Amino acid sequence: MATTSSEGTLQRVLGRNLRAYRVERGLSQEDFAELLGVHRTYMGGVERGERNLTLQSVERMAIHLKVSALDLLRPETD
Amino acid sequence: MATTSSEGTLQRVLGRNLRAYRVERGLSQEDFAELLGVHRTYMGGVERGERNLTLQSVERMAIHLKVSALDLLRPETD
Repeated sequence: MATTSSEGTLQRVLGRNLRAYRVERGLSQEDFAELLGVHRTYMGGVERGERNLTLQSVERMAIHLKVSALDLLRPETD
Repeated sequence: MATTSSEGTLQRVLGRNLRAYRVERGLSQEDFAELLGVHRTYMGGVERGERNLTLQSVERMAIHLKVSALDLLRPETD
């Protein structure tokens, strides 16, 4: 298990986790963006791991999804 | 254990964790800021949980400290 970080990892993990939540709920990217209170095109960038979000933005998404912010940032273990 | 988030929690947790690392290493806030490649006054705000950092800024600090970014964001369990 990796104990060090590299830049951009968190935002890619966040994107993957958000996409997984969306697929699990059977939502379109547009519906999901609305649920999270963000614009659809912005959400596309977030899901692709291209957005360097702030901690508060991550928390806001977690609140909308009723999950923990850490859960959004935690790499999938498989 | 809390499963939901509230805004500002992550940045307060980050601040507490960074302060704990600094104290553990016997460093002044100034030395620690230099180690993390940030300005001393900025670091003070971070430690007080006042700064809404981006994910990449958190990762950069984690890299300098040779820890995982998630470790910096994880609440202390006690």
